[in-house]
Amino acid sequence: MSIVDKLIEKTIKTKNPTVVGLDPDISKIPACYKENSDNTNPVVAVTDVIYKFNCDIIDTVAELVPAVKPQMAFYEKYGSYGVAAFEKTVVYAKSKGLVVIEDAKRNDIGNTAKAYADGHLGFVETLEGSYTSAFDVDFLTVTPFLGSESLNPFVDVCKQNNKGIFVLVKTSNTSSGEIQDVITKDGITISQSIAKYVAEQSEVVVGKYGYSSIGAVVGATYPEEAVALRRIMPKGYFLVPGYGVQGGGVEDIVPCFNPDGLGAIINSSRGILYTHMSDKERNVCTKEEYLSSAKIAVIEMQKDIYSTLKKNFPKMCY
Amino acid sequence: MSIVDKLIEKTIKTKNPTVVGLDPDISKIPACYKENSDNTNPVVAVTDVIYKFNCDIIDTVAELVPAVKPQMAFYEKYGSYGVAAFEKTVVYAKSKGLVVIEDAKRNDIGNTAKAYADGHLGFVETLEGSYTSAFDVDFLTVTPFLGSESLNPFVDVCKQNNKGIFVLVKTSNTSSGEIQDVITKDGITISQSIAKYVAEQSEVVVGKYGYSSIGAVVGATYPEEAVALRRIMPKGYFLVPGYGVQGGGVEDIVPCFNPDGLGAIINSSRGILYTHMSDKERNVCTKEEYLSSAKIAVIEMQKDIYSTLKKNFPKMCY
Repeated sequence: MSIVDKLIEKTIKTKNPTVVGLDPDISKIPACYKENSDNTNPVVAVTDVIYKFNCDIIDTVAELVPAVKPQMAFYEKYGSYGVAAFEKTVVYAKSKGLVVIEDAKRNDIGNTAKAYADGHLGFVETLEGSYTSAFDVDFLTVTPFLGSESLNPFVDVCKQNNKGIFVLVKTSNTSSGEIQDVITKDGITISQSIAKYVAEQSEVVVGKYGYSSIGAVVGATYPEEAVALRRIMPKGYFLVPGYGVQGGGVEDIVPCFNPDGLGAIINSSRGILYTHMSDKERNVCTKEEYLSSAKIAVIEMQKDIYSTLKKNFPKMCY
Repeated sequence: MSIVDKLIEKTIKTKNPTVVGLDPDISKIPACYKENSDNTNPVVAVTDVIYKFNCDIIDTVAELVPAVKPQMAFYEKYGSYGVAAFEKTVVYAKSKGLVVIEDAKRNDIGNTAKAYADGHLGFVETLEGSYTSAFDVDFLTVTPFLGSESLNPFVDVCKQNNKGIFVLVKTSNTSSGEIQDVITKDGITISQSIAKYVAEQSEVVVGKYGYSSIGAVVGATYPEEAVALRRIMPKGYFLVPGYGVQGGGVEDIVPCFNPDGLGAIINSSRGILYTHMSDKERNVCTKEEYLSSAKIAVIEMQKDIYSTLKKNFPKMCY
């Protein structure tokens, strides 16, 4: 099955086009996870806590959402031990049937871009000339600043290994327009010109629901731009950050979807991981209380988004 | 001492404004490094070879160049074991007095950008609320696609910890112009508008030679663009890829420098690591033969660049 079809089928089954961002922040992880650490290496101790916290969150959400999105920066900041915790998190999430979207915004030129693509989505060469996989995530976010030559190796690896990418097209942050909104000589924005590249590439890997594993990051904070981008990339799947804590409201995500209720997956990280409890509550709660509260946050997000989509797209497919 | 001053003083001492890129490629590392591997984990075996090869290259070049530039993609492709080899390489290079420029082209939004900045250039929080460093490199390459809000956390960490960044301004690859050459409403290219940001930031961290630790990546393959960028960023140090294998000639790098012979550091990766010997020779040589050949490649590159600079800038400071 195409990886985008797996994402879609799990979306339909859970009636929930959302992804839980796994952005570990040790200052916000509840105190109950930090007790009884017996490791003398402080970096190993913190990455152990991160992994255990992730496993509990994954267990809590595995039947409720189609996918998780670990953000590499929050693992890599702890060096190789953090990256090992990332790897274990990916393995655990996949073992629970979740689609794994790695948010790492990687890219470089030529053979270096290929090294990133091979490491995250493909296979890497060993001493004997045989190959093994490294991160083996399902989807990876990719930065387009270096142009199409830098994106092509990722597209190639996706085709070869049934993987997917989300190319940054319009990001959710306040300064995204400085580069992304500049008008090219064709009279369209840079975001739109990248969207045209994505649309071309997405034509060649379309799954049975009519969508492609070559998709785009489109922020919930710019709904008017999303309308234009949806039109340019009818088959590209959208990964949509910016909902919730970053300011995007539930009506803002509607333009990211097609009338079938598909075509986009909405991310929430802090809203599910942390902000459903206050700092004070996180210091005194039990794990059970915390996970129960996180589960309620996931269910409420599902209800908000599903009811809004149903209102806008009464004929959606789930 | 400011980190850019350390880079400059080592450049003057070696009369060599170049940096050796450490881009391990197991298919090109000489066969003599791959013998007698007794590790049964194929990924550990390959990353062990990479680390040993790096150490020998570092020993060979330590007195000849001011800096090395490990390209993270070629380590990260082997997951956490590869990242561990990267970390050990950084420690070894610093122990030999080399400045370490990490080429990772990282970035993201807001608190995620801060996580990258903290992990690569700063300090990260542990369980007890104390802080430790992770990668602790001297300089990091950073991508500007998400705008100034995404770059500011890196600038802040540089100021706090005496570190440096090279912001991608004009990259050396063939498709770099697709985004970077687009003209903004101010009538300048996107590269030039990023250069203006770099110039503003570089004003605030200037070392005793008049240069800043906030610099730019400017490819050797676009010498005309380099002229304009040098003018916009008089104090920003340039990291210059694209010399040699990628097609940039020795005259092409001249516009990246100021008349003092400073302001830029030229990268060569494959030319030093591999292409000084043929595939066939790499399969049969001894380590001593290989390193001796690599040393000659470093010395020849130094001669070419130094004599060209001296010809163009007779009053340069070294």
